[in-house]
Amino acid sequence: MNISVIGGSKCSKKDYEIAKELGGLIAKEGWTLICGGRTGVMEAACCGAKEEGGTTVAILPSADAKDANPYVDVKIPTGLGYARNILVVRASEIIVAISGKYGTLSEIAFAFNEDRHVIGINTWKIKGVVPVKTPMQAISQIKKILKKRK
Amino acid sequence: MNISVIGGSKCSKKDYEIAKELGGLIAKEGWTLICGGRTGVMEAACCGAKEEGGTTVAILPSADAKDANPYVDVKIPTGLGYARNILVVRASEIIVAISGKYGTLSEIAFAFNEDRHVIGINTWKIKGVVPVKTPMQAISQIKKILKKRK
Amino acid sequence: MNISVIGGSKCSKKDYEIAKELGGLIAKEGWTLICGGRTGVMEAACCGAKEEGGTTVAILPSADAKDANPYVDVKIPTGLGYARNILVVRASEIIVAISGKYGTLSEIAFAFNEDRHVIGINTWKIKGVVPVKTPMQAISQIKKILKKRK
Amino acid sequence: MNISVIGGSKCSKKDYEIAKELGGLIAKEGWTLICGGRTGVMEAACCGAKEEGGTTVAILPSADAKDANPYVDVKIPTGLGYARNILVVRASEIIVAISGKYGTLSEIAFAFNEDRHVIGINTWKIKGVVPVKTPMQAISQIKKILKKRK
Repeated sequence: MNISVIGGSKCSKKDYEIAKELGGLIAKEGWTLICGGRTGVMEAACCGAKEEGGTTVAILPSADAKDANPYVDVKIPTGLGYARNILVVRASEIIVAISGKYGTLSEIAFAFNEDRHVIGINTWKIKGVVPVKTPMQAISQIKKILKKRK
Repeated sequence: MNISVIGGSKCSKKDYEIAKELGGLIAKEGWTLICGGRTGVMEAACCGAKEEGGTTVAILPSADAKDANPYVDVKIPTGLGYARNILVVRASEIIVAISGKYGTLSEIAFAFNEDRHVIGINTWKIKGVVPVKTPMQAISQIKKILKKRK
Repeated sequence: MNISVIGGSKCSKKDYEIAKELGGLIAKEGWTLICGGRTGVMEAACCGAKEEGGTTVAILPSADAKDANPYVDVKIPTGLGYARNILVVRASEIIVAISGKYGTLSEIAFAFNEDRHVIGINTWKIKGVVPVKTPMQAISQIKKILKKRK
Repeated sequence: MNISVIGGSKCSKKDYEIAKELGGLIAKEGWTLICGGRTGVMEAACCGAKEEGGTTVAILPSADAKDANPYVDVKIPTGLGYARNILVVRASEIIVAISGKYGTLSEIAFAFNEDRHVIGINTWKIKGVVPVKTPMQAISQIKKILKKRK
Protein backbone atom coordinates (compact mmCIF):
# COMPACT_ATOMS: atom_id res chain seq x y z
CA MET A 1 0.00 0.00 0.00
CA ASN A 2 1.18 3.51 -0.83
CA ILE A 3 1.10 6.52 1.50
CA SER A 4 1.96 9.90 -0.03
CA VAL A 5 3.73 12.51 2.05
CA ILE A 6 3.51 16.06 0.75
CA GLY A 7 4.91 19.35 1.99
CA GLY A 8 7.32 22.15 1.30
CA SER A 9 10.69 21.70 -0.38
CA LYS A 10 11.81 24.17 2.28
CA CYS A 11 10.68 23.58 5.85
CA SER A 12 11.55 24.40 9.46
CA LYS A 13 13.86 22.13 11.41
CA LYS A 14 10.85 21.08 13.48
CA ASP A 15 8.81 20.08 10.43
CA TYR A 16 11.84 18.23 9.06
CA GLU A 17 11.97 16.15 12.25
CA ILE A 18 8.22 15.50 12.08
CA ALA A 19 8.46 14.35 8.46
CA LYS A 20 11.43 12.13 9.25
CA GLU A 21 9.61 10.47 12.13
CA LEU A 22 6.54 10.00 9.95
CA GLY A 23 8.61 8.39 7.18
CA GLY A 24 10.05 5.95 9.70
CA LEU A 25 6.62 5.00 11.01
CA ILE A 26 5.26 4.50 7.49
CA ALA A 27 8.17 2.16 6.72
CA LYS A 28 7.63 0.22 9.96
CA GLU A 29 4.05 -0.44 8.87
CA GLY A 30 5.34 -1.92 5.61
CA TRP A 31 3.78 0.83 3.52
CA THR A 32 5.52 2.34 0.48
CA LEU A 33 6.35 6.03 0.78
CA ILE A 34 5.43 8.15 -2.24
CA CYS A 35 6.58 11.75 -2.47
CA GLY A 36 7.68 14.46 -4.84
CA GLY A 37 11.32 13.43 -4.39
CA ARG A 38 12.84 16.81 -3.61
CA THR A 39 14.24 18.48 -0.50
CA GLY A 40 12.58 19.61 2.74
CA VAL A 41 9.62 17.55 3.92
CA MET A 42 10.09 15.08 1.05
CA GLU A 43 13.73 14.43 1.86
CA ALA A 44 13.02 14.10 5.55
CA ALA A 45 10.24 11.55 5.03
CA CYS A 46 12.45 9.49 2.68
CA CYS A 47 15.37 9.66 5.11
CA GLY A 48 13.20 8.40 7.95
CA ALA A 49 11.73 5.62 5.83
CA LYS A 50 15.15 4.39 4.70
CA GLU A 51 16.41 4.26 8.29
CA GLU A 52 13.64 1.76 8.92
CA GLY A 53 14.31 -0.21 5.74
CA GLY A 54 11.25 1.04 3.87
CA THR A 55 10.74 1.64 0.16
CA THR A 56 10.73 5.24 -1.08
CA VAL A 57 9.41 6.47 -4.42
CA ALA A 58 9.98 9.93 -5.93
CA ILE A 59 7.71 11.41 -8.58
CA LEU A 60 9.96 14.21 -9.74
CA PRO A 61 9.00 17.42 -11.56
CA SER A 62 12.10 17.39 -13.76
CA ALA A 63 13.10 14.84 -16.39
CA ASP A 64 16.33 14.16 -14.52
CA ALA A 65 16.56 11.37 -11.94
CA LYS A 66 19.57 13.12 -10.40
CA ASP A 67 17.22 15.73 -8.92
CA ALA A 68 15.95 13.19 -6.38
CA ASN A 69 17.07 13.45 -2.77
CA PRO A 70 19.62 10.83 -1.63
CA TYR A 71 17.07 8.65 0.18
CA VAL A 72 14.96 7.65 -2.82
CA ASP A 73 14.81 4.05 -4.07
CA VAL A 74 12.60 4.41 -7.13
CA LYS A 75 13.00 7.61 -9.15
CA ILE A 76 10.29 8.62 -11.62
CA PRO A 77 11.50 11.76 -13.39
CA THR A 78 8.32 12.99 -15.08
CA GLY A 79 9.41 16.16 -16.89
CA LEU A 80 5.87 17.44 -16.28
CA GLY A 81 6.85 20.26 -13.91
CA TYR A 82 4.37 20.84 -11.14
CA ALA A 83 1.72 18.90 -13.06
CA ARG A 84 3.45 15.99 -11.36
CA ASN A 85 1.74 17.09 -8.15
CA ILE A 86 -1.42 15.36 -9.27
CA LEU A 87 0.49 12.09 -9.74
CA VAL A 88 1.87 12.25 -6.20
CA VAL A 89 -1.69 12.56 -4.97
CA ARG A 90 -3.25 9.94 -7.23
CA ALA A 91 -0.66 7.36 -6.21
CA SER A 92 -2.18 6.92 -2.73
CA GLU A 93 -5.60 6.82 -1.16
CA ILE A 94 -4.26 8.55 1.92
CA ILE A 95 -1.99 11.58 1.92
CA VAL A 96 -0.21 13.24 4.84
CA ALA A 97 0.58 16.94 4.43
CA ILE A 98 3.24 18.65 6.55
CA SER A 99 3.52 22.45 6.35
CA GLY A 100 3.94 23.51 2.70
CA LYS A 101 2.98 26.45 0.52
CA TYR A 102 0.91 26.77 -2.64
CA GLY A 103 2.31 23.57 -4.19
CA THR A 104 1.12 21.64 -1.16
CA LEU A 105 -2.23 23.41 -1.30
CA SER A 106 -2.64 22.33 -4.93
CA GLU A 107 -2.00 18.76 -3.86
CA ILE A 108 -4.51 18.95 -0.99
CA ALA A 109 -7.13 20.36 -3.36
CA PHE A 110 -6.43 17.69 -5.99
CA ALA A 111 -6.65 15.04 -3.31
CA PHE A 112 -10.18 16.04 -2.37
CA ASN A 113 -11.12 16.47 -6.01
CA GLU A 114 -10.21 12.79 -6.47
CA ASP A 115 -11.80 11.52 -3.24
CA ARG A 116 -8.56 10.97 -1.37
CA HIS A 117 -8.08 11.40 2.36
CA VAL A 118 -5.75 14.09 3.67
CA ILE A 119 -4.25 14.18 7.15
CA GLY A 120 -2.45 17.40 8.03
CA ILE A 121 0.31 18.46 10.42
CA ASN A 122 1.04 22.22 10.65
CA THR A 123 -0.44 22.72 7.20
CA TRP A 124 -3.22 24.53 5.33
CA LYS A 125 -6.52 24.64 7.21
CA ILE A 126 -8.76 23.51 4.38
CA LYS A 127 -12.17 21.89 4.92
CA GLY A 128 -11.68 18.14 4.76
CA VAL A 129 -8.11 17.98 6.08
CA VAL A 130 -7.96 15.94 9.30
CA PRO A 131 -5.55 17.86 11.54
CA VAL A 132 -3.22 15.90 13.83
CA LYS A 133 -0.27 17.00 15.94
CA THR A 134 2.21 14.14 15.75
CA PRO A 135 3.36 11.46 13.28
CA MET A 136 1.99 8.80 15.65
CA GLN A 137 -1.44 10.41 15.50
CA ALA A 138 -1.19 10.48 11.70
CA ILE A 139 -0.53 6.73 11.66
CA SER A 140 -3.53 6.11 13.97
CA GLN A 141 -5.66 8.21 11.66
CA ILE A 142 -4.48 6.25 8.60
CA LYS A 143 -5.40 2.99 10.33
CA LYS A 144 -8.85 4.35 11.21
CA ILE A 145 -9.46 5.20 7.54
CA LEU A 146 -8.25 1.77 6.41
CA LYS A 147 -10.55 0.08 8.92
CA LYS A 148 -13.60 1.99 7.70
CA ARG A 149 -12.86 1.10 4.10
CA LYS A 150 -13.05 -2.64 4.70
CA MET B 1 -3.84 38.11 -24.58
CA ASN B 2 -5.45 35.24 -22.68
CA ILE B 3 -7.60 35.51 -19.56
CA SER B 4 -8.55 32.26 -17.82
CA VAL B 5 -11.88 31.99 -16.07
CA ILE B 6 -12.17 29.16 -13.54
CA GLY B 7 -14.98 27.97 -11.31
CA GLY B 8 -17.41 25.19 -10.61
CA SER B 9 -18.99 23.01 -13.29
CA LYS B 10 -22.09 23.47 -11.13
CA CYS B 11 -22.91 26.95 -9.89
CA SER B 12 -25.77 29.08 -8.61
CA LYS B 13 -27.90 31.07 -11.05
CA LYS B 14 -26.31 34.22 -9.61
CA ASP B 15 -22.75 33.00 -10.25
CA TYR B 16 -23.79 31.91 -13.75
CA GLU B 17 -24.92 35.47 -14.49
CA ILE B 18 -21.70 36.90 -13.04
CA ALA B 19 -19.58 34.53 -15.19
CA LYS B 20 -21.61 35.38 -18.29
CA GLU B 21 -21.18 39.11 -17.74
CA LEU B 22 -17.47 38.63 -17.13
CA GLY B 23 -17.10 36.61 -20.35
CA GLY B 24 -18.77 39.40 -22.28
CA LEU B 25 -16.49 42.04 -20.80
CA ILE B 26 -13.38 39.96 -21.55
CA ALA B 27 -14.50 39.63 -25.18
CA LYS B 28 -15.18 43.39 -25.43
CA GLU B 29 -11.58 44.04 -24.38
CA GLY B 30 -10.40 41.81 -27.23
CA TRP B 31 -8.93 39.22 -24.85
CA THR B 32 -9.15 35.49 -25.53
CA LEU B 33 -11.15 33.52 -22.96
CA ILE B 34 -9.49 30.33 -21.72
CA CYS B 35 -11.44 27.89 -19.56
CA GLY B 36 -11.93 24.23 -18.75
CA GLY B 37 -14.66 23.96 -21.36
CA ARG B 38 -17.37 22.32 -19.28
CA THR B 39 -20.67 23.46 -17.75
CA GLY B 40 -21.45 25.97 -14.99
CA VAL B 41 -19.10 28.93 -14.68
CA MET B 42 -17.13 27.79 -17.75
CA GLU B 43 -20.21 27.60 -19.96
CA ALA B 44 -21.51 30.92 -18.70
CA ALA B 45 -18.24 32.72 -19.40
CA CYS B 46 -18.04 31.24 -22.91
CA CYS B 47 -21.67 32.13 -23.60
CA GLY B 48 -21.09 35.73 -22.57
CA ALA B 49 -17.91 35.98 -24.62
CA LYS B 50 -19.59 34.64 -27.76
CA GLU B 51 -22.45 37.12 -27.44
CA GLU B 52 -19.81 39.83 -27.73
CA GLY B 53 -18.02 38.14 -30.63
CA GLY B 54 -15.03 36.99 -28.58
CA THR B 55 -12.84 33.92 -28.95
CA THR B 56 -13.32 31.05 -26.49
CA VAL B 57 -10.90 28.20 -25.83
CA ALA B 58 -11.66 25.02 -23.88
CA ILE B 59 -8.95 22.89 -22.31
CA LEU B 60 -11.00 19.78 -21.65
CA PRO B 61 -10.31 16.96 -19.16
CA SER B 62 -11.56 14.26 -21.52
CA ALA B 63 -10.11 13.20 -24.86
CA ASP B 64 -13.42 13.97 -26.56
CA ALA B 65 -14.05 17.40 -28.10
CA LYS B 66 -17.80 16.73 -27.86
CA ASP B 67 -17.60 17.30 -24.10
CA ALA B 68 -17.14 21.03 -24.64
CA ASN B 69 -20.02 23.38 -23.93
CA PRO B 70 -21.77 24.83 -27.02
CA TYR B 71 -20.04 28.23 -26.80
CA VAL B 72 -16.48 27.05 -27.38
CA ASP B 73 -14.53 28.00 -30.52
CA VAL B 74 -11.28 26.11 -29.99
CA LYS B 75 -11.56 22.72 -28.30
CA ILE B 76 -8.43 21.13 -26.81
CA PRO B 77 -9.44 17.68 -25.52
CA THR B 78 -6.47 16.72 -23.36
CA GLY B 79 -7.38 13.29 -22.00
CA LEU B 80 -5.35 14.23 -18.90
CA GLY B 81 -8.30 14.33 -16.49
CA TYR B 82 -8.01 17.02 -13.86
CA ALA B 83 -4.29 17.36 -14.58
CA ARG B 84 -5.62 19.67 -17.27
CA ASN B 85 -6.35 22.18 -14.51
CA ILE B 86 -2.72 23.21 -14.53
CA LEU B 87 -2.91 23.93 -18.26
CA VAL B 88 -5.93 26.19 -17.79
CA VAL B 89 -3.90 28.16 -15.27
CA ARG B 90 -0.62 28.23 -17.20
CA ALA B 91 -2.37 29.56 -20.29
CA SER B 92 -2.90 33.02 -18.78
CA GLU B 93 -1.04 35.42 -16.56
CA ILE B 94 -4.29 36.53 -14.97
CA ILE B 95 -7.04 34.22 -13.80
CA VAL B 96 -10.51 35.07 -12.54
CA ALA B 97 -12.11 32.57 -10.17
CA ILE B 98 -15.87 32.49 -9.59
CA SER B 99 -17.21 30.24 -6.80
CA GLY B 100 -15.95 26.66 -7.31
CA LYS B 101 -14.98 23.70 -5.13
CA TYR B 102 -11.76 21.72 -4.77
CA GLY B 103 -11.01 21.72 -8.50
CA THR B 104 -11.07 25.50 -8.46
CA LEU B 105 -8.95 25.55 -5.32
CA SER B 106 -6.34 23.37 -7.06
CA GLU B 107 -6.25 25.90 -9.89
CA ILE B 108 -5.88 28.85 -7.53
CA ALA B 109 -3.02 27.09 -5.75
CA PHE B 110 -1.30 26.18 -9.03
CA ALA B 111 -1.71 29.76 -10.17
CA PHE B 112 0.24 31.13 -7.21
CA ASN B 113 2.77 28.32 -7.50
CA GLU B 114 3.48 29.60 -11.02
CA ASP B 115 3.41 33.32 -10.18
CA ARG B 116 0.06 34.04 -11.78
CA HIS B 117 -2.45 36.61 -10.55
CA VAL B 118 -5.85 35.49 -9.28
CA ILE B 119 -8.90 37.71 -8.94
CA GLY B 120 -11.82 36.13 -7.08
CA ILE B 121 -15.59 36.58 -7.00
CA ASN B 122 -17.49 34.56 -4.34
CA THR B 123 -14.66 32.05 -4.22
CA TRP B 124 -12.05 30.52 -1.87
CA LYS B 125 -10.52 33.02 0.55
CA ILE B 126 -6.89 32.10 -0.03
CA LYS B 127 -4.00 34.47 0.68
CA GLY B 128 -3.09 36.14 -2.59
CA VAL B 129 -6.53 36.12 -4.22
CA VAL B 130 -7.71 39.68 -4.92
CA PRO B 131 -11.41 39.67 -4.01
CA VAL B 132 -13.81 41.75 -6.08
CA LYS B 133 -17.60 41.90 -6.16
CA THR B 134 -18.52 42.44 -9.79
CA PRO B 135 -17.24 41.52 -13.27
CA MET B 136 -16.58 45.22 -13.92
CA GLN B 137 -14.32 45.36 -10.87
CA ALA B 138 -12.52 42.24 -12.11
CA ILE B 139 -11.81 43.96 -15.42
CA SER B 140 -10.51 47.08 -13.62
CA GLN B 141 -8.26 44.85 -11.52
CA ILE B 142 -6.93 43.08 -14.64
CA LYS B 143 -6.08 46.45 -16.19
CA LYS B 144 -4.30 47.54 -13.02
CA ILE B 145 -2.14 44.40 -13.14
CA LEU B 146 -1.37 44.90 -16.84
CA LYS B 147 -0.37 48.53 -16.19
CA LYS B 148 2.06 47.55 -13.43
CA ARG B 149 3.68 44.93 -15.64
CA LYS B 150 4.68 47.40 -18.34
CA MET C 1 -13.05 21.83 -36.91
CA ASN C 2 -9.39 21.40 -35.95
CA ILE C 3 -6.63 20.13 -38.23
CA SER C 4 -3.25 19.44 -36.61
CA VAL C 5 -0.08 19.99 -38.59
CA ILE C 6 3.01 18.26 -37.22
CA GLY C 7 6.62 18.19 -38.35
CA GLY C 8 10.15 19.19 -37.50
CA SER C 9 11.11 22.41 -35.73
CA LYS C 10 13.90 22.44 -38.30
CA CYS C 11 13.01 21.73 -41.92
CA SER C 12 14.22 22.26 -45.47
CA LYS C 13 13.21 25.34 -47.41
CA LYS C 14 11.07 23.10 -49.61
CA ASP C 15 9.20 21.60 -46.63
CA TYR C 16 8.74 25.10 -45.20
CA GLU C 17 7.01 26.16 -48.43
CA ILE C 18 4.85 23.02 -48.39
CA ALA C 19 3.80 23.65 -44.78
CA LYS C 20 3.04 27.30 -45.53
CA GLU C 21 0.87 26.40 -48.50
CA LEU C 22 -0.92 23.75 -46.43
CA GLY C 23 -1.60 26.26 -43.63
CA GLY C 24 -3.12 28.64 -46.13
CA LEU C 25 -5.39 25.94 -47.59
CA ILE C 26 -6.52 24.86 -44.11
CA ALA C 27 -7.44 28.47 -43.30
CA LYS C 28 -9.33 28.86 -46.59
CA GLU C 29 -11.48 25.87 -45.65
CA GLY C 30 -12.36 27.61 -42.37
CA TRP C 31 -10.59 24.99 -40.27
CA THR C 32 -8.61 25.87 -37.15
CA LEU C 33 -4.89 25.06 -37.35
CA ILE C 34 -3.46 23.27 -34.32
CA CYS C 35 0.29 22.80 -33.98
CA GLY C 36 3.14 22.62 -31.51
CA GLY C 37 3.75 26.35 -31.88
CA ARG C 38 7.47 26.34 -32.53
CA THR C 39 9.68 26.96 -35.57
CA GLY C 40 10.09 25.05 -38.84
CA VAL C 41 7.02 23.26 -40.15
CA MET C 42 4.90 24.65 -37.31
CA GLU C 43 5.86 28.25 -38.02
CA ALA C 44 5.37 27.82 -41.74
CA ALA C 45 1.89 26.37 -41.34
CA CYS C 46 0.86 29.18 -38.97
CA CYS C 47 2.32 31.81 -41.31
CA GLY C 48 0.35 30.43 -44.24
CA ALA C 49 -2.84 30.22 -42.23
CA LYS C 50 -2.56 33.83 -41.01
CA GLU C 51 -2.02 35.09 -44.56
CA GLU C 52 -5.45 33.66 -45.34
CA GLY C 53 -7.05 35.04 -42.17
CA GLY C 54 -7.26 31.70 -40.39
CA THR C 55 -7.06 30.88 -36.69
CA THR C 56 -3.84 29.33 -35.37
CA VAL C 57 -3.38 27.54 -32.05
CA ALA C 58 -0.05 26.57 -30.45
CA ILE C 59 0.24 23.83 -27.84
CA LEU C 60 3.71 24.68 -26.55
CA PRO C 61 6.15 22.40 -24.68
CA SER C 62 7.34 25.19 -22.39
CA ALA C 63 5.37 27.11 -19.78
CA ASP C 64 6.17 30.38 -21.55
CA ALA C 65 3.80 31.80 -24.18
CA LYS C 66 6.71 33.83 -25.58
CA ASP C 67 8.13 30.65 -27.10
CA ALA C 68 5.38 30.62 -29.73
CA ASN C 69 6.22 31.60 -33.29
CA PRO C 70 4.95 35.04 -34.39
CA TYR C 71 1.97 33.67 -36.34
CA VAL C 72 0.07 32.13 -33.43
CA ASP C 73 -3.29 33.47 -32.27
CA VAL C 74 -3.99 31.25 -29.27
CA LYS C 75 -1.00 30.22 -27.17
CA ILE C 76 -1.31 27.29 -24.78
CA PRO C 77 1.99 27.02 -22.89
CA THR C 78 1.73 23.58 -21.27
CA GLY C 79 5.00 23.20 -19.39
CA LEU C 80 4.69 19.45 -20.07
CA GLY C 81 7.73 19.21 -22.36
CA TYR C 82 7.30 16.76 -25.20
CA ALA C 83 4.36 15.14 -23.38
CA ARG C 84 2.51 17.98 -25.07
CA ASN C 85 2.89 16.03 -28.33
CA ILE C 86 -0.04 13.86 -27.37
CA LEU C 87 -2.20 16.98 -26.89
CA VAL C 88 -1.36 18.23 -30.39
CA VAL C 89 -2.55 14.89 -31.73
CA ARG C 90 -5.66 14.53 -29.57
CA ALA C 91 -6.85 17.98 -30.56
CA SER C 92 -7.79 16.89 -34.10
CA GLU C 93 -9.26 13.87 -35.80
CA ILE C 94 -7.03 14.41 -38.79
CA ILE C 95 -3.32 15.20 -38.65
CA VAL C 96 -0.99 16.18 -41.49
CA ALA C 97 2.69 15.31 -40.97
CA ILE C 98 5.43 17.06 -42.98
CA SER C 99 8.98 15.72 -42.70
CA GLY C 100 10.02 15.56 -39.00
CA LYS C 101 12.20 13.38 -36.78
CA TYR C 102 11.50 11.31 -33.67
CA GLY C 103 9.15 13.91 -32.15
CA THR C 104 6.99 13.69 -35.25
CA LEU C 105 7.19 9.90 -35.18
CA SER C 106 5.92 9.92 -31.59
CA GLU C 107 2.98 12.02 -32.73
CA ILE C 108 2.20 9.72 -35.66
CA ALA C 109 2.28 6.71 -33.33
CA PHE C 110 0.09 8.40 -30.76
CA ALA C 111 -2.32 9.38 -33.50
CA PHE C 112 -2.88 5.76 -34.54
CA ASN C 113 -3.01 4.68 -30.91
CA GLU C 114 -5.98 7.04 -30.51
CA ASP C 115 -7.67 6.20 -33.82
CA ARG C 116 -6.77 9.41 -35.57
CA HIS C 117 -6.05 9.75 -39.30
CA VAL C 118 -2.58 10.76 -40.49
CA ILE C 119 -1.76 12.17 -43.92
CA GLY C 120 1.95 12.43 -44.68
CA ILE C 121 4.15 14.57 -46.94
CA ASN C 122 7.88 13.65 -47.06
CA THR C 123 7.61 12.02 -43.66
CA TRP C 124 8.00 8.68 -41.84
CA LYS C 125 6.80 5.68 -43.83
CA ILE C 126 4.71 4.06 -41.10
CA LYS C 127 1.85 1.67 -41.80
CA GLY C 128 -1.37 3.69 -41.71
CA VAL C 129 0.04 7.03 -42.89
CA VAL C 130 -1.65 8.10 -46.15
CA PRO C 131 1.18 9.53 -48.27
CA VAL C 132 0.46 12.49 -50.53
CA LYS C 133 2.77 14.76 -52.50
CA THR C 134 1.20 18.21 -52.29
CA PRO C 135 -0.83 20.32 -49.84
CA MET C 136 -3.73 20.26 -52.32
CA GLN C 137 -3.72 16.46 -52.23
CA ALA C 138 -3.67 16.58 -48.42
CA ILE C 139 -6.79 18.76 -48.43
CA SER C 140 -8.54 16.35 -50.86
CA GLN C 141 -7.62 13.48 -48.58
CA ILE C 142 -9.00 15.32 -45.52
CA LYS C 143 -12.28 15.90 -47.36
CA LYS C 144 -12.47 12.22 -48.32
CA ILE C 145 -12.08 11.22 -44.66
CA LEU C 146 -14.71 13.73 -43.55
CA LYS C 147 -17.12 12.43 -46.19
CA LYS C 148 -16.73 8.83 -45.02
CA ARG C 149 -17.36 9.83 -41.42
CA LYS C 150 -20.81 11.25 -42.12
CA MET D 1 19.05 1.78 -11.66
CA ASN D 2 15.83 1.57 -13.67
CA ILE D 3 15.29 -0.43 -16.85
CA SER D 4 12.00 0.11 -18.69
CA VAL D 5 10.40 -2.76 -20.57
CA ILE D 6 7.81 -1.77 -23.15
CA GLY D 7 5.63 -3.79 -25.50
CA GLY D 8 2.10 -4.79 -26.34
CA SER D 9 -0.64 -5.38 -23.77
CA LYS D 10 -1.47 -8.31 -26.02
CA CYS D 11 1.39 -10.52 -27.19
CA SER D 12 2.17 -13.97 -28.53
CA LYS D 13 3.01 -16.79 -26.15
CA LYS D 14 6.58 -16.65 -27.44
CA ASP D 15 6.93 -12.93 -26.71
CA TYR D 16 5.39 -13.48 -23.27
CA GLU D 17 8.12 -16.01 -22.49
CA ILE D 18 10.82 -13.67 -23.79
CA ALA D 19 9.51 -10.81 -21.65
CA LYS D 20 9.31 -13.06 -18.60
CA GLU D 21 12.90 -14.23 -19.03
CA LEU D 22 14.04 -10.65 -19.54
CA GLY D 23 12.26 -9.54 -16.35
CA GLY D 24 14.03 -12.27 -14.43
CA LEU D 25 17.44 -11.27 -15.77
CA ILE D 26 16.82 -7.59 -14.96
CA ALA D 27 15.94 -8.55 -11.38
CA LYS D 28 19.06 -10.73 -11.06
CA GLU D 29 21.19 -7.73 -11.99
CA GLY D 30 19.56 -5.79 -9.16
CA TRP D 31 17.92 -3.31 -11.53
CA THR D 32 14.40 -1.94 -10.94
CA LEU D 33 11.86 -2.89 -13.63
CA ILE D 34 9.71 -0.02 -14.88
CA CYS D 35 6.76 -0.72 -17.15
CA GLY D 36 3.26 0.41 -18.05
CA GLY D 37 1.78 -2.03 -15.54
CA ARG D 38 -0.78 -3.74 -17.75
CA THR D 39 -1.08 -7.17 -19.36
CA GLY D 40 0.96 -8.89 -22.10
CA VAL D 41 4.64 -8.01 -22.26
CA MET D 42 4.33 -5.80 -19.16
CA GLU D 43 2.79 -8.56 -17.05
CA ALA D 44 5.30 -11.12 -18.26
CA ALA D 45 8.28 -8.94 -17.42
CA CYS D 46 6.90 -8.19 -13.94
CA CYS D 47 6.17 -11.88 -13.36
CA GLY D 48 9.72 -12.85 -14.29
CA ALA D 49 11.21 -10.10 -12.13
CA LYS D 50 9.18 -11.11 -9.07
CA GLU D 51 10.24 -14.75 -9.43
CA GLU D 52 13.80 -13.50 -8.98
CA GLY D 53 12.91 -11.22 -6.08
CA GLY D 54 13.20 -7.99 -8.06
CA THR D 55 11.32 -4.71 -7.68
CA THR D 56 8.60 -3.90 -10.22
CA VAL D 57 7.05 -0.50 -10.86
CA ALA D 58 3.91 0.19 -12.91
CA ILE D 59 3.17 3.59 -14.43
CA LEU D 60 -0.50 3.05 -15.22
CA PRO D 61 -2.67 4.92 -17.74
CA SER D 62 -5.73 4.89 -15.48
CA ALA D 63 -6.19 6.58 -12.11
CA ASP D 64 -6.93 3.20 -10.50
CA ALA D 65 -4.14 1.15 -8.93
CA LYS D 66 -6.32 -1.96 -9.31
CA ASP D 67 -5.60 -1.94 -13.04
CA ALA D 68 -2.04 -3.12 -12.40
CA ASN D 69 -1.09 -6.71 -13.16
CA PRO D 70 -0.62 -8.97 -10.10
CA TYR D 71 3.21 -8.81 -10.18
CA VAL D 72 3.61 -5.10 -9.51
CA ASP D 73 5.19 -3.80 -6.29
CA VAL D 74 4.86 -0.05 -6.77
CA LYS D 75 1.72 1.17 -8.53
CA ILE D 76 1.64 4.70 -9.93
CA PRO D 77 -1.86 5.26 -11.34
CA THR D 78 -1.41 8.42 -13.41
CA GLY D 79 -4.86 9.05 -14.88
CA LEU D 80 -3.04 10.57 -17.88
CA GLY D 81 -4.12 7.92 -20.39
CA TYR D 82 -1.47 7.11 -22.96
CA ALA D 83 0.37 10.32 -22.11
CA ARG D 84 1.81 8.12 -19.40
CA ASN D 85 3.88 6.44 -22.14
CA ILE D 86 6.34 9.27 -21.99
CA LEU D 87 6.78 8.72 -18.25
CA VAL D 88 7.60 5.03 -18.77
CA VAL D 89 10.31 6.11 -21.17
CA ARG D 90 11.69 9.01 -19.13
CA ALA D 91 12.05 6.80 -16.07
CA SER D 92 15.03 4.89 -17.52
CA GLU D 93 18.06 5.63 -19.64
CA ILE D 94 17.75 2.25 -21.31
CA ILE D 95 14.52 0.75 -22.64
CA VAL D 96 13.91 -2.75 -23.97
CA ALA D 97 11.02 -3.08 -26.46
CA ILE D 98 9.40 -6.45 -27.17
CA SER D 99 6.90 -6.67 -30.03
CA GLY D 100 4.15 -4.03 -29.57
CA LYS D 101 1.96 -1.85 -31.78
CA TYR D 102 1.51 1.91 -32.09
CA GLY D 103 1.69 2.50 -28.31
CA THR D 104 5.12 0.89 -28.28
CA LEU D 105 6.15 2.85 -31.35
CA SER D 106 5.22 6.08 -29.56
CA GLU D 107 7.45 5.04 -26.68
CA ILE D 108 10.37 4.20 -28.97
CA ALA D 109 10.02 7.56 -30.68
CA PHE D 110 9.82 9.42 -27.38
CA ALA D 111 12.86 7.53 -26.17
CA PHE D 112 15.01 8.79 -29.03
CA ASN D 113 13.51 12.26 -28.71
CA GLU D 114 14.86 12.30 -25.14
CA ASP D 115 18.23 10.68 -25.91
CA ARG D 116 17.42 7.32 -24.41
CA HIS D 117 18.75 3.97 -25.66
CA VAL D 118 16.35 1.39 -27.08
CA ILE D 119 17.09 -2.31 -27.47
CA GLY D 120 14.51 -4.26 -29.46
CA ILE D 121 13.32 -7.86 -29.65
CA ASN D 122 10.76 -8.67 -32.40
CA THR D 123 9.68 -5.06 -32.49
CA TRP D 124 9.47 -2.00 -34.76
CA LYS D 125 12.45 -1.59 -37.08
CA ILE D 126 13.14 2.07 -36.42
CA LYS D 127 16.52 3.70 -37.00
CA GLY D 128 18.33 3.74 -33.67
CA VAL D 129 16.79 0.61 -32.15
CA VAL D 130 19.51 -1.98 -31.41
CA PRO D 131 17.98 -5.30 -32.44
CA VAL D 132 18.79 -8.41 -30.40
CA LYS D 133 17.31 -11.90 -30.45
CA THR D 134 17.30 -13.03 -26.83
CA PRO D 135 16.90 -11.56 -23.33
CA MET D 136 20.52 -12.54 -22.58
CA GLN D 137 21.68 -10.49 -25.56
CA ALA D 138 19.58 -7.59 -24.33
CA ILE D 139 21.33 -7.72 -20.95
CA SER D 140 24.76 -7.80 -22.66
CA GLN D 141 23.74 -4.80 -24.72
CA ILE D 142 22.58 -2.91 -21.60
CA LYS D 143 25.95 -3.57 -19.96
CA LYS D 144 27.79 -2.35 -23.04
CA ILE D 145 25.84 0.92 -22.92
CA LEU D 146 26.50 1.35 -19.20
CA LYS D 147 30.23 0.76 -19.74
CA LYS D 148 30.44 3.41 -22.47
CA ARG D 149 28.64 5.95 -20.28
CA LYS D 150 31.24 5.82 -17.52
